[in-house]
Amino acid sequence: MDFLAALAEKAHLVNGALDRYLPGENTYPQLIHRAMRYSVFSGGKRLRPALTLAAAEAVKGDSNAVLPAACAIELIHTYSLVHDDLPAMDNSDLRRGRATTHRVFGEGIAVLVGDALLTLGFDLLSQAGSEFSIPPAKVLQVVQEVAAACGTMGLIGGQVIDLTLLPKEADEKTLDYIHRTKTGALFRACVRTGAILGGADEDKLRKLTTFAEHFGLAFQIIDDILDVEGSPEKTGKTVGSDARNAKTTYVSLFGVDESRVRAHKCLDSAITALVDFGSEADFLRHAAYFCKTRKF
Amino acid sequence: MDFLAALAEKAHLVNGALDRYLPGENTYPQLIHRAMRYSVFSGGKRLRPALTLAAAEAVKGDSNAVLPAACAIELIHTYSLVHDDLPAMDNSDLRRGRATTHRVFGEGIAVLVGDALLTLGFDLLSQAGSEFSIPPAKVLQVVQEVAAACGTMGLIGGQVIDLTLLPKEADEKTLDYIHRTKTGALFRACVRTGAILGGADEDKLRKLTTFAEHFGLAFQIIDDILDVEGSPEKTGKTVGSDARNAKTTYVSLFGVDESRVRAHKCLDSAITALVDFGSEADFLRHAAYFCKTRKF
Repeated sequence: MDFLAALAEKAHLVNGALDRYLPGENTYPQLIHRAMRYSVFSGGKRLRPALTLAAAEAVKGDSNAVLPAACAIELIHTYSLVHDDLPAMDNSDLRRGRATTHRVFGEGIAVLVGDALLTLGFDLLSQAGSEFSIPPAKVLQVVQEVAAACGTMGLIGGQVIDLTLLPKEADEKTLDYIHRTKTGALFRACVRTGAILGGADEDKLRKLTTFAEHFGLAFQIIDDILDVEGSPEKTGKTVGSDARNAKTTYVSLFGVDESRVRAHKCLDSAITALVDFGSEADFLRHAAYFCKTRKF
Repeated sequence: MDFLAALAEKAHLVNGALDRYLPGENTYPQLIHRAMRYSVFSGGKRLRPALTLAAAEAVKGDSNAVLPAACAIELIHTYSLVHDDLPAMDNSDLRRGRATTHRVFGEGIAVLVGDALLTLGFDLLSQAGSEFSIPPAKVLQVVQEVAAACGTMGLIGGQVIDLTLLPKEADEKTLDYIHRTKTGALFRACVRTGAILGGADEDKLRKLTTFAEHFGLAFQIIDDILDVEGSPEKTGKTVGSDARNAKTTYVSLFGVDESRVRAHKCLDSAITALVDFGSEADFLRHAAYFCKTRKF
């Protein structure tokens, strides 16, 4: 499988659907809709929604039926980036090589863009079943999964610790907490969402969850490595920004080599979790293979 | 009916439930949970969740069964206040006579508090049926109602226009839009949520919606009047803050007397909408009577 081509195909589907779900730029109040679209259509790889689609495929579900939920997760992911970039948080001027939302539209609108994307995400998620007659109980389960992943025991909890951590407090346990919550929880939720809506039984859901947990952690460790060694053209970020912001990362705690060993171990565990799945899970497997050599 | 006593009774129920639903101050990460509780337990009247309970009662539903949804709406209302108060928005130092969240915990945490309250609101809303076996389809309908009310065609849309409006653009149409979206949409959603979960038929739901729309608009007009004539001890706000912020309000467009006439007309329409309801709707009726003379 050419993973990048397969990912691009899924990203194309997701982009088309996002374009339908987001209010048009001429919809009143135009400013917020323009700013939402600026934030969402910024060259993201659409990895999370692609994993949602792929998780549905892995349990022989209909990936079209999970497209609204996949888009909802991408909107929610984008909200978290827009708010993380704010001056009161990471104070980032650039994201994927472009000016961040608050740099273009101002801080007040950037706060509202994040709020609006989170809200639209839950709106879309709650409608995820209507077109494809997915049972309402399953849709509700998915709303709960995503809400829990995004709350103070998930994404927001990780961001709080990341924001307030003093360098002397940074140890492996804290770093694991940040990674498990700040990025891991949403990876886990996007895979579980695809699996649940795709009709996974308990056993398959558990195995896909194990895949997602290992994959998510590896993805984050590799992010830390790329911050040190990556090329700014490929990552869209300034090299060394974590170090300059005195962020504790896997690399600052363990060095590049040990971090890479840990990431590869996680990816092997992720692949092993899929051993009972057929070729339907190839996208997920190849996502893990690809991660071992990813440069962005 | 002693409306204030009846409201206090409902507020007591809501406060007890909010205390159970919000993570404790000692739950890791403590800072965000402390800040969430500071924001939620700040002496709010709990009018919105009380209306949710009362709407369920008005259709002879079980108000206990809608308590989680009522609390979810109060969390979402609080999120909107915390974000509105931010320096990049209304830049308010005081709310109900106390320092605003960002003044106590810093801007970054205040953004995250809002995000967390919104997320917990949807989490709680999606679980609203589990304890009382409300059909999942009804719960999903309510999630959609609230999400729509909070999105860019509702609360956020109103805030965008309020934030970016130039005084010369302020006319009656724009002011109506701001009121209908920024405060009206959530009033409408909280009444509809109680009615839907309480088992309203289409006719009752339509009448309660009419009540909510008129009541919400009157409530906002009276807010504008109180900003000019209210006592700061009762409103917890500085008198004249709208005028100093050059906000367009009903009072700035029509003067106090004409504004009061309009508010009373709305309240009469609200009461008329309840004509087919029995004494079960007394709380809603008395909420409207009370509004005619409210001082806070």
